[in-house]
Amino acid sequence: MNPVRVGIVGLGRLGRRHAENLAWHVPGAKLAAACSPVREEREWAASGVPELALYADYDELLADASIDAVWLVTPTSLHARQIIAALRAGKHVFCEKPLSLDLAECDAVIEAHARHPHLQVMIGFVRRFDASYRDAFDGIAKGVIGRPFMVRSQTCDKNDPDGFFVRFAPTSGGLFLDCSVHDIDLARWLLGNPRPKRVVASGTIAIHEGLRECGDIDNGVGTIEFDDGRLAVLYASRTMAHGHDTQTEVIGTAGALSVGRNPRANRVEIADAQGMRNTCTPTFFERFEDAFLREAQAFVVSLTHGTPTGLTLDDAREATRIGIAMREAYERGRAVEL
Amino acid sequence: MNPVRVGIVGLGRLGRRHAENLAWHVPGAKLAAACSPVREEREWAASGVPELALYADYDELLADASIDAVWLVTPTSLHARQIIAALRAGKHVFCEKPLSLDLAECDAVIEAHARHPHLQVMIGFVRRFDASYRDAFDGIAKGVIGRPFMVRSQTCDKNDPDGFFVRFAPTSGGLFLDCSVHDIDLARWLLGNPRPKRVVASGTIAIHEGLRECGDIDNGVGTIEFDDGRLAVLYASRTMAHGHDTQTEVIGTAGALSVGRNPRANRVEIADAQGMRNTCTPTFFERFEDAFLREAQAFVVSLTHGTPTGLTLDDAREATRIGIAMREAYERGRAVEL
Amino acid sequence: MNPVRVGIVGLGRLGRRHAENLAWHVPGAKLAAACSPVREEREWAASGVPELALYADYDELLADASIDAVWLVTPTSLHARQIIAALRAGKHVFCEKPLSLDLAECDAVIEAHARHPHLQVMIGFVRRFDASYRDAFDGIAKGVIGRPFMVRSQTCDKNDPDGFFVRFAPTSGGLFLDCSVHDIDLARWLLGNPRPKRVVASGTIAIHEGLRECGDIDNGVGTIEFDDGRLAVLYASRTMAHGHDTQTEVIGTAGALSVGRNPRANRVEIADAQGMRNTCTPTFFERFEDAFLREAQAFVVSLTHGTPTGLTLDDAREATRIGIAMREAYERGRAVEL
Amino acid sequence: MNPVRVGIVGLGRLGRRHAENLAWHVPGAKLAAACSPVREEREWAASGVPELALYADYDELLADASIDAVWLVTPTSLHARQIIAALRAGKHVFCEKPLSLDLAECDAVIEAHARHPHLQVMIGFVRRFDASYRDAFDGIAKGVIGRPFMVRSQTCDKNDPDGFFVRFAPTSGGLFLDCSVHDIDLARWLLGNPRPKRVVASGTIAIHEGLRECGDIDNGVGTIEFDDGRLAVLYASRTMAHGHDTQTEVIGTAGALSVGRNPRANRVEIADAQGMRNTCTPTFFERFEDAFLREAQAFVVSLTHGTPTGLTLDDAREATRIGIAMREAYERGRAVEL
Repeated sequence: MNPVRVGIVGLGRLGRRHAENLAWHVPGAKLAAACSPVREEREWAASGVPELALYADYDELLADASIDAVWLVTPTSLHARQIIAALRAGKHVFCEKPLSLDLAECDAVIEAHARHPHLQVMIGFVRRFDASYRDAFDGIAKGVIGRPFMVRSQTCDKNDPDGFFVRFAPTSGGLFLDCSVHDIDLARWLLGNPRPKRVVASGTIAIHEGLRECGDIDNGVGTIEFDDGRLAVLYASRTMAHGHDTQTEVIGTAGALSVGRNPRANRVEIADAQGMRNTCTPTFFERFEDAFLREAQAFVVSLTHGTPTGLTLDDAREATRIGIAMREAYERGRAVEL
Repeated sequence: MNPVRVGIVGLGRLGRRHAENLAWHVPGAKLAAACSPVREEREWAASGVPELALYADYDELLADASIDAVWLVTPTSLHARQIIAALRAGKHVFCEKPLSLDLAECDAVIEAHARHPHLQVMIGFVRRFDASYRDAFDGIAKGVIGRPFMVRSQTCDKNDPDGFFVRFAPTSGGLFLDCSVHDIDLARWLLGNPRPKRVVASGTIAIHEGLRECGDIDNGVGTIEFDDGRLAVLYASRTMAHGHDTQTEVIGTAGALSVGRNPRANRVEIADAQGMRNTCTPTFFERFEDAFLREAQAFVVSLTHGTPTGLTLDDAREATRIGIAMREAYERGRAVEL
Repeated sequence: MNPVRVGIVGLGRLGRRHAENLAWHVPGAKLAAACSPVREEREWAASGVPELALYADYDELLADASIDAVWLVTPTSLHARQIIAALRAGKHVFCEKPLSLDLAECDAVIEAHARHPHLQVMIGFVRRFDASYRDAFDGIAKGVIGRPFMVRSQTCDKNDPDGFFVRFAPTSGGLFLDCSVHDIDLARWLLGNPRPKRVVASGTIAIHEGLRECGDIDNGVGTIEFDDGRLAVLYASRTMAHGHDTQTEVIGTAGALSVGRNPRANRVEIADAQGMRNTCTPTFFERFEDAFLREAQAFVVSLTHGTPTGLTLDDAREATRIGIAMREAYERGRAVEL
Repeated sequence: MNPVRVGIVGLGRLGRRHAENLAWHVPGAKLAAACSPVREEREWAASGVPELALYADYDELLADASIDAVWLVTPTSLHARQIIAALRAGKHVFCEKPLSLDLAECDAVIEAHARHPHLQVMIGFVRRFDASYRDAFDGIAKGVIGRPFMVRSQTCDKNDPDGFFVRFAPTSGGLFLDCSVHDIDLARWLLGNPRPKRVVASGTIAIHEGLRECGDIDNGVGTIEFDDGRLAVLYASRTMAHGHDTQTEVIGTAGALSVGRNPRANRVEIADAQGMRNTCTPTFFERFEDAFLREAQAFVVSLTHGTPTGLTLDDAREATRIGIAMREAYERGRAVEL
C-alpha cells in the first residue's frame, strides 16, 4: 500500500510539531511537501526532512498532483478558504481547530465538502485523541459512571507575562472561541452530542488590561444548558501561575470521571522545605504532545482504511456556534438562547 | 473565670454532636441545660451529661437565669423567632446555618440584635472554622496567590437512595439555599466581602424526580458576578456516588489555593485489583467534625474574651440574599441583578 | 460513675499536650495532680487547670491517695523504676514509649505488674490509636489485602538544623530504639504478632557528624525476618527536609494498604510557579495530635470499663528487644539472630 | 547522512515493540533485517515492515554486510556469545538487559569490546531513558535535593495467577537478578556510581510455592551499603494485585525526589462507591513504552553522532555483580562483602 503523501501548510511552532510527526512517526504517511511564505520556515523543513517539495505559495502546493492531503496549521482566518480550495483540488484536509470564527464560513466549508464526499476533512480537536480522554470516553460508554449528566471542563493557560496573546486577541475570536471551544467539543463528545438550549457566561480581566480595548477577557466562565437538562460548566483562563491546566470532569448518576485534575508534568514528586510537590505541564504542547501524534495517526488510518475518526465538520461548526453564543452572553450580561 | 453556661436547643443528630462538644471538649463552657420537645432526646442528654437541666419548652429554658447562652440546632423556620426571643431574654446565641430563608426575617433578627449590642449572635458557617479553610484564608491574606479574583466552590452530598431529603425539600429553601449558602459565605469570606452584582444559575434533576413537584433540583450550578469584576462559580449536588465532596478553589493572580480536592476519609490508600484508591468522607459530619468543635471553641472564646469571630449577622443575611437570587435565576432561566 | 483521677508526671512539650487532653477532652478523666521538678512547669499547670494538686517530687504524688493513675511523660531512663513504684503505690500507669532501653528493666516491670494484676499499665505506642492506622488495621482484619506478608514502615523527622537531638543522642538508645521502635510495634501489630527470627540493619550519617562520637546515625534502615517468612522493612531518619514523614505500607496477597504516603499537613493544595504542592506535618505532634487524644480516651475507657486496649507490656518489651537487635546488627555489620 | 541499518534479533513480545520503534519512530534508523528461528515471528515482521531481510539464523544475519547494528532481544543465556559474535562481525550492538547472569561472561564481553573500541555496545537499562527518571536525574544534578545519600527503589510486577514466570524461574537468575538489577542500575546512576561494600537481602514466597524447588522467591528485599556510607534499599515482587509498580525515591540532605509513587495508568481518576481511584499500569510495557522509544533513539543518535549514552558495559557488569551478591546474601542468610 502506498503511503499517503502529505503537504504541510504553516511551519510555526505547532506546524513544526505536526511536520516532525508526519515525517517520522506516522506509519502510512509520507511528508512530501511543505508550504510556508516564510523562507526560514521552508529552510527548517528542508534541512530536517528528506525528499521534501517546498512551496511558498498555497496554490502551487495544491497544483502538485502527487500530494494526497494537506495539513493546515495556518491562522484561523484562512482555514475556510484554504479547506475549500483543497477540496476543489481533490485533496483530503486536516485543519487545526477552530474551523472558523464565523458560522457562515463553517457552512460554506460544509457545503463544499458535500460536493466532494469522497474526500475527508478533519478539524483537529486534539483532545479527543489523548489517551486519558479516550480512556474516560470508553469508561463512560461502558457505564462506569451511570448516566452522565454534567461536564465541568477548563482550558487554562500559563500566564505569559509578556502578554504576547494580547496582540493576538483582536483576531483570536476572544477567550471563549479560542480556548473554550475545546471544552465545548469535549462536553458534546463526552455527553453524546446533546442539543444546546441556552448559554450564560461571565468574565473578568485579572491581569491583562490591554484586552479591554478589544472587549476580550483573560478569565471567563460559562454554562451550557442542553435541552435534555444536562449541563456543561466551562472555565478558560490565560493567567495560571502553575502551568497549562486543562482538566475535565464528567459527573454521572453512579460516579464521576475526571481527566487531568493535577496537571503534573511527569511522574516525579519533590519533597523539600516547601512540602510535597510536582511540576506542571508548561504549555499545551507538553500536555498533548502524544495526542497530536495519535491524532495524525488516526487521520492517516482513516484515509487509508476509510474508518471514520468520529469527528465531523458538524462537530466543528457546533463548537464555533456555541462559542459565539458564550461570547455574546458575556458581552450582553444575559442568557443567550440557541 | 466562671464557665459560660450553655443551653442547647434541639438534640437531633447534629444537635447531639454539638452537645457532646460543649459537654466535654470546649474549655470555658459548661453544658448546663438541654431543651427538646422529644422525650428520648432529653433522656439521651440526661444519661450522658452530668448536672444538666432539662426543658421540653424553649421559653422555660429562656426563663432559666443561670443560662448565659443558647445553642440553636433547630429547624431553619424557627431560627429567627428563637434568636429574637433569646436576645430579649438576655442570652447570647449560637444558631446553626442558615439564619433564615426569608430576608425580612433576617432583617428582624439584625434589628433585634441592634437593640442588644452587648449580646453576641453567631450563625454557624462551620467551614470558616475548619483547619484547612483557615489555612487557606491565612495563605490568601499573606499574599500566597496574589490578588484572588475567582472562587470555585462546591457542596456535594452523597446520594441517599432513599431520598429522605426529597420529603424535606419543600421546607429546605431548595438546593441553593440549603447547600450553596455555605459556598456563598466561603466565597465572600475568601474574597474579602465584595458586593454581588448579578447572579445566574442552572439546574437539573439527575436522579430524584420527586423534587420536580416542589420546583427543586438535585444538581445546580451558578455564578456570582461581584461589582469589582470578581467571580464565584458554585456547584451543589445531592447525588454524589463517592461521598460528601466539599471543595473550594481560590484563584489569584500569582497562584491558586484549593481545599479538599480529594475528599479523602483519612490517610489510608488501598492498592488492589481496581487500582489505587482512597475512601471518601461519607457525610459532612465526618468532613467537618473537627470544625464543629473549633467553631464552638471560637464562639465560647468570643463570649469570654470579647474577641470577635469575624462572622456577623450581615454575613448570614448576605448568604441568604444571594442564595435567594440564585434560586430565582434558576427558576426564571435568566440573570438576576442584585 | 466517678472520674478517674489522674496525676501527670513530666510537663515538657509532650507532657503539656497530655495534660491538656486529660484536663479538657477525656470523658471520664479528671486531671487532679501534676508533678514536675521544674517550677515553671508546675506554674504552667496551675494556671491552666482548676483544682490541681502540684508536686515537685514523684514519691509525694504516689503518696496522694486520691490519685488513681499516673501518666508518665518522663525521660526513658526513669520509666521502669517509676512504673514499678506506681504499681507498688496501687496506681494504674500510662507511660510514654519506649518502656525502657534495657531488656532487664522491661522484665522487672513485667514481673512487678504480675504482682499487681488488677492494675493496668499501658505504654503509649500512640500510632495504634491514630484513626488512619486503626482503619488500616481493621481493613486488614477484614481481609481487604488478603494475607499480609510484608510491612514497610518509616519514622522520619524533619531535620533540626540546630541538631538539638545530637546532645540527646547518648541517652536516646540510638536511632533504632528511639524511632524505629514505633515501626517495630506497628509491624508486629499489623502482621498479628509473628515471632522475629533475624534482623539486619544499615545506617549512615547524612548531616549530623556529631553523632559519630556516640556511635549513632541520622539515617538507618533495617529488615526483620519473622519465622513464618514474613518481613518488615524499616527506615528511620532525623534529616527530612519536608517535615515529619511517618508512613507505613502493608502488602498482602490480594492488595496493599498504606498510611500516610503523603505527609500532608491538611487538605490545602497550592498551585503556583513551583507546581502543585501541599505542605507537610512539621513534627509528630501535628501528625498524631488526634491520636494522642484517642490514646488517652482509650486508656481511660479501659480503666473505667475494664476493656483492654490491646497493648500489653509484652508488646513494649518486644519492641525494645527487636530495636536492640537492630542496633547490634548495624554496629556489627551482620545479621543478628533472635 | 545514511540511516543506521539495524537487524533485530528475537521477535517475542518485547522484540516486536523494538521492531516497531525501529521501523517507524527512530529518525536516523532503518530496520533492515529481522532474525528469528520462529517462522511466525519472521512472517509477522515481513508483513509489517517494508524492504526487510529475514534470517532464521543469527550467523547469516551477521554475514549480511549491509547491516550496521544488531538489536538483541533474545534470552539472557545467549547475550554474551551473541554480542561477542556481533563485535567480531563488525556490528554495533544493542542488547536487552541483563548483560549476563554470569560474571565471567560479562568480563568476556568487556574484553571483546576492548578489541573493537570503535563499535558501540549498549545494554538496555531502559529506565535511564524514561522522561521522569531523566527529570529526576537532572534535578539531582542541579542540586535540588542537596547531596543524595539514599535510594529506595522497587520493581514490582502484577501477579500472574497462571504463574507463567515460575516455569521461567530456573533460567531467570532469580528475583534479584531478573528484577532488582534495574534498581541496582538506577541506584548507581542516581548516586553517581559509588562502590558497593556490602549487601544483605531477605525474601519470602507469598503466593508461588512452585518457586521453592529452584530456590527462588516471589518477594525480596535487600540493602546495598556503598563504601562512602550511602545506601540503597531495594524491593522486588512478582505478586502485586494492582499492577506493575516501579518506583524510586532518592533522599538527599536538602530534599527527596521520587518517581512513580502512584503507578497511575494515565490522567483519569474515578469517583464512585469505592472512593477516589486511578487504575495502574498493568505491565512494564505500558509503564516504559515511551522509554523504550527514547532508548532506541538515544542509541541511534550515539551511533550517528558519536555521543555516548552514559551507559557502559561496566555498568551492566556491576548490576550483575551486585545482583549475584544479593542472591547469595538471601541464600546464606547473612551479609555478603563485595
